[in-house]
Amino acid sequence: MKFWKKNIFQSLISKKKNFSIQEKAFQKQIEILIGYKPISIEIFHECFTHTSLNSDDKNFERLEFLGDSIISTVVSDFLFHKAPNKDEGYLTQMRSKMVNRSALNLLGKKLNLSTYLNKRKNTNLGKNIEGNLYESLVGAIYVDKGFIFSKKFIERTLINTDDLINLENKITSYKSYILEWAQKNKFNITFETSQEDNAENILIFDSVIKLNDQIISKGRASSKKSAEEIASKRAYYKLNNKINKL
Amino acid sequence: MKFWKKNIFQSLISKKKNFSIQEKAFQKQIEILIGYKPISIEIFHECFTHTSLNSDDKNFERLEFLGDSIISTVVSDFLFHKAPNKDEGYLTQMRSKMVNRSALNLLGKKLNLSTYLNKRKNTNLGKNIEGNLYESLVGAIYVDKGFIFSKKFIERTLINTDDLINLENKITSYKSYILEWAQKNKFNITFETSQEDNAENILIFDSVIKLNDQIISKGRASSKKSAEEIASKRAYYKLNNKINKL
Repeated sequence: MKFWKKNIFQSLISKKKNFSIQEKAFQKQIEILIGYKPISIEIFHECFTHTSLNSDDKNFERLEFLGDSIISTVVSDFLFHKAPNKDEGYLTQMRSKMVNRSALNLLGKKLNLSTYLNKRKNTNLGKNIEGNLYESLVGAIYVDKGFIFSKKFIERTLINTDDLINLENKITSYKSYILEWAQKNKFNITFETSQEDNAENILIFDSVIKLNDQIISKGRASSKKSAEEIASKRAYYKLNNKINKL
Repeated sequence: MKFWKKNIFQSLISKKKNFSIQEKAFQKQIEILIGYKPISIEIFHECFTHTSLNSDDKNFERLEFLGDSIISTVVSDFLFHKAPNKDEGYLTQMRSKMVNRSALNLLGKKLNLSTYLNKRKNTNLGKNIEGNLYESLVGAIYVDKGFIFSKKFIERTLINTDDLINLENKITSYKSYILEWAQKNKFNITFETSQEDNAENILIFDSVIKLNDQIISKGRASSKKSAEEIASKRAYYKLNNKINKL
């Protein structure tokens, strides 16, 4: 064998070996993550393929579509049995507290889901990628092994069986809370939110909350809603301190 | 035994006998409807108890909340496998065509679900009762016998495996269709919708569609959206005839 031919041949072997080592590591990680040995690893590759690499049919988005409904079913089932004397309005409210973007993002982050993601370099993943991957993973488990396994995974990772009372008290919108509080205590609260283009031509929103004409907090974000929510959360803690000091 | 005592006693027996005959008939009907002998009939009583009889926790609404998510899961599963090369946007669109109020109402009507309903006399059931009962029934099957049985029921009653192409062509909003058609063909379409109180003090909406200032159809309903949709559907058939005649 000529020297250069041998070299290419060895490099191919070594590439294949590297791939196989990587693939084995991926399979092992997935097994630990989902708690069983997958029947087909293919669906988990799809689950962790970003649209930047495959914009058609084999990326995480189809599985995310599927996982979203499964999570809703499992959480509804949990609430239906956990709160047998509560009406449909209560169940709906609790479900949206358990399954919202920020809850799922937190969960995806806890499970380090974005570290498994296969994507094009320098891709902006968006702020909801962790939650989307959680939904996608639930979808993949369902396709691989059926409803019962996806249910077990959700129960193990998302559902904290003791937390209904905590959930009831959970504030999902600080803005609504602040407005309610002000109305109840006859304070005058105003939100002043303005927008500006920053140096990179990205729209930025500034929100200022005034209590009886005095500024009590500010928030800044890329959407009006977020800016007001940030300012409201700050106002909430500031007011809480005030109330405690009185 | 004194005569009047005997009489009451007999009447009680006969009442119990009647109840037991009714109950057996109900159980038989449910068995035919769901395709298996229920483990617990109790949940099917809950499923067909209207809020007018039991406004707290034992009416169909909690099961409806549960069934809604299950239907979404099963239809998502069906679409995920039936359309392996379509993206998440397509799947979402198809799902909302398969699972919307009017589709579920039609289905509930076909299964005669409101005839099983236990309600207070002269109760206004609302226009979505049939679809709500379909969701509730799916929830009851899930609670009674698990996911696989509720999936089978949905597949048997809701999913027509051949109808993806029909669905793609299905018009879900005649108003959007008419507006699109007019724009494409450079016609001037206007909607004029007015409201009035009728003799019973109920708000009624009248919608008039004009094509190049000529009235082509009218619609009347209890909401603006419905009135415009009715008028649009009539316009659609009128225009279709016109086009065919040309």
